[in-house]
Amino acid sequence: MKKLSVGIIGLGCRGMSVLTSELLEMRNIEITAVSDSYQDRIEKACSVVKDKYDKKPFATTDYHELLDKSPDAVIIATPWKNHIKITIEAMRKKIAVGCEVGGANDIQECVELVKTYEETGTPCMLLENCCYGRNELMILNMIKQGIFGEIIHCQGGYRHDLRGEIDNGIENRHYRFEEYLHKNRENYPTHELGPIAFCLDINRGNKLKNLISVSSKASGLAEYRKINGKPPLTYTQGDVVTTIITCENGQTIVLTLDTTLPRYYSRGFHIQGTKAMFDEDNLSIYINDEHTPYEFDWKPMWNNVENYREKYEHPIWQKYKDNVSGGHWGMDRLVFDAFFNSIANNKPMPIDVYDMATWMSISALSEKSLKQNSFVEIPDFTRGKWKDKRELLL
Amino acid sequence: MKKLSVGIIGLGCRGMSVLTSELLEMRNIEITAVSDSYQDRIEKACSVVKDKYDKKPFATTDYHELLDKSPDAVIIATPWKNHIKITIEAMRKKIAVGCEVGGANDIQECVELVKTYEETGTPCMLLENCCYGRNELMILNMIKQGIFGEIIHCQGGYRHDLRGEIDNGIENRHYRFEEYLHKNRENYPTHELGPIAFCLDINRGNKLKNLISVSSKASGLAEYRKINGKPPLTYTQGDVVTTIITCENGQTIVLTLDTTLPRYYSRGFHIQGTKAMFDEDNLSIYINDEHTPYEFDWKPMWNNVENYREKYEHPIWQKYKDNVSGGHWGMDRLVFDAFFNSIANNKPMPIDVYDMATWMSISALSEKSLKQNSFVEIPDFTRGKWKDKRELLL
Repeated sequence: MKKLSVGIIGLGCRGMSVLTSELLEMRNIEITAVSDSYQDRIEKACSVVKDKYDKKPFATTDYHELLDKSPDAVIIATPWKNHIKITIEAMRKKIAVGCEVGGANDIQECVELVKTYEETGTPCMLLENCCYGRNELMILNMIKQGIFGEIIHCQGGYRHDLRGEIDNGIENRHYRFEEYLHKNRENYPTHELGPIAFCLDINRGNKLKNLISVSSKASGLAEYRKINGKPPLTYTQGDVVTTIITCENGQTIVLTLDTTLPRYYSRGFHIQGTKAMFDEDNLSIYINDEHTPYEFDWKPMWNNVENYREKYEHPIWQKYKDNVSGGHWGMDRLVFDAFFNSIANNKPMPIDVYDMATWMSISALSEKSLKQNSFVEIPDFTRGKWKDKRELLL
Repeated sequence: MKKLSVGIIGLGCRGMSVLTSELLEMRNIEITAVSDSYQDRIEKACSVVKDKYDKKPFATTDYHELLDKSPDAVIIATPWKNHIKITIEAMRKKIAVGCEVGGANDIQECVELVKTYEETGTPCMLLENCCYGRNELMILNMIKQGIFGEIIHCQGGYRHDLRGEIDNGIENRHYRFEEYLHKNRENYPTHELGPIAFCLDINRGNKLKNLISVSSKASGLAEYRKINGKPPLTYTQGDVVTTIITCENGQTIVLTLDTTLPRYYSRGFHIQGTKAMFDEDNLSIYINDEHTPYEFDWKPMWNNVENYREKYEHPIWQKYKDNVSGGHWGMDRLVFDAFFNSIANNKPMPIDVYDMATWMSISALSEKSLKQNSFVEIPDFTRGKWKDKRELLL
């Protein structure tokens, strides 16, 4: 089979890591073009591509020139604010798009995203690696087998101490700095919302209906600067933003953005059904009648997820588990494989533009909710098609 | 010292357990009167009191008669809806009140509670045992020593599978049945909010400002009845009610009521400051610079709370730990000791009517928020005195 020609736009921390740990390691694609606003990043990328292929890729500081080269697919790993804009431009040029995660800046661009897809039919996938997390997929598998009963309440978060990355953002040319300086919102919802949306059949018989966001004060980065002897600086982004989403079918989802206080990393994946519960923060599965609620000291349940691994491992991980490679515990490779395989086999994307628009819209909507101190409706980007109980294509 | 004469009103599950496990075991008090609407409960209580003292207490199905006997103090363990009403009546008769936990039905009764206290000066304490939890007190102690820096975000919950207790409420004459049948709200906020309020200096320099509540659908009890072969019944109470409170000083508190789905017990006590974090669900303490946020596999931190026990154990537990007695891991005895000692020594109550009104009001306010789909202001029951940074008297 002919290798897919692939361009990559955005060669910062994520772009370079995707390039070296995933793309250059994959045999069914070839990196033919690279782009970034910064020349030094381009040079670094060209160098690693040349080392691998003994051939320099096309390189440009203007991503339009990359799109003009018409690669089979493009990977977008730019700052969040450009994700949808570039996705739309690429789709209009019939270039399949794999877009890295992030939040949308406004609802109109999400609407435009869907409209462009429907007009052009260009394949487009949000590269939400956490949808391929081993535990997320195992729980999804258990849900599909009925172990959890009806799902009622889910929680998730992006709970990751990024104080260094944000506050050193000027020196490191990291877009998070500007985002945290000027905006306040749930700025990174998809890592947790993606897997939850799949558990709740969102856009596949269920729908996100509305949300409310509440923000704490912003003190974490100020304290961080103080500890590090830096002059004071006023950040706008609250330390913890809590968002409650209500679904059309009556379930609730609580999302927590928590990136500027000291803590361990967690996506806080938490699923409660009428028959079972999973909690990421102690990796426990609780099944009705199998465990006792009155066992007040519940430490014996910690990490019992491993007891269910063999029986309920998702088929994707059954195949993958002995051959894990790439970044983020192997999730990255799975999401890129899914993207390129869908293109090569001319199949619909497992995470499609409707998912992408829906999940990314939460950022813009939470900003609006925080400004208005009120509930905000979540638009139906499927225009009614959410009622169709189509199969999840993971 | 003369023993305090004590009456108890309400002899259901909680009342009887308090009577036998705490009150009858305490040497500085004597149970002189008991009351309940049900004659069989009274007889049972009289029997255990007689077994202990070889003397029958005064007994009545009309609690007014008990109040007319003017004991030094009364313990109220009736259904939630009567807590504040009876508290007010006792205070007007100058009988010191220890009131069991629960939520308020309306704001006016909370206002009346405070007004009655201010008019009568009768000692009154909410018997919130969880304020005396070993971990809650240790974390409070660490906060007071500055280990957590500024507290920014707290979470807590009453996450306890009560399906049996609720759904068998008719047979067992348990008030939770009627509550769940007809109402939807955060019906039991004080177990988690009490300790959090102390961590955040609420009514001692800080204040609860407003809240928003969102409810999931109600499916857990329906499924429970199905499993148990009972005919369908429509409960009003949502399975999970999430409430976000914002504080005057900018902190956020997320409360979760979660009592009708299968799960292990947890109060989900979770505290995040600018320098440290605690999480109950894996009993971990994370301290800035002492732990690394990029240790993605954070299992080694589970239960590390024990590593800090010796250094940071709260003085109350330092004294108590080798002599723990009574219910709920010893918390109950501590809260009753605090109540009776405050009366005996003529000292202000550690959990006073302002705390009681503030914490209990959350139930009524969350019901209003759910009905209106909007934020609700939390009244200032201290009428400005919250600005006074008075000491916590635990």
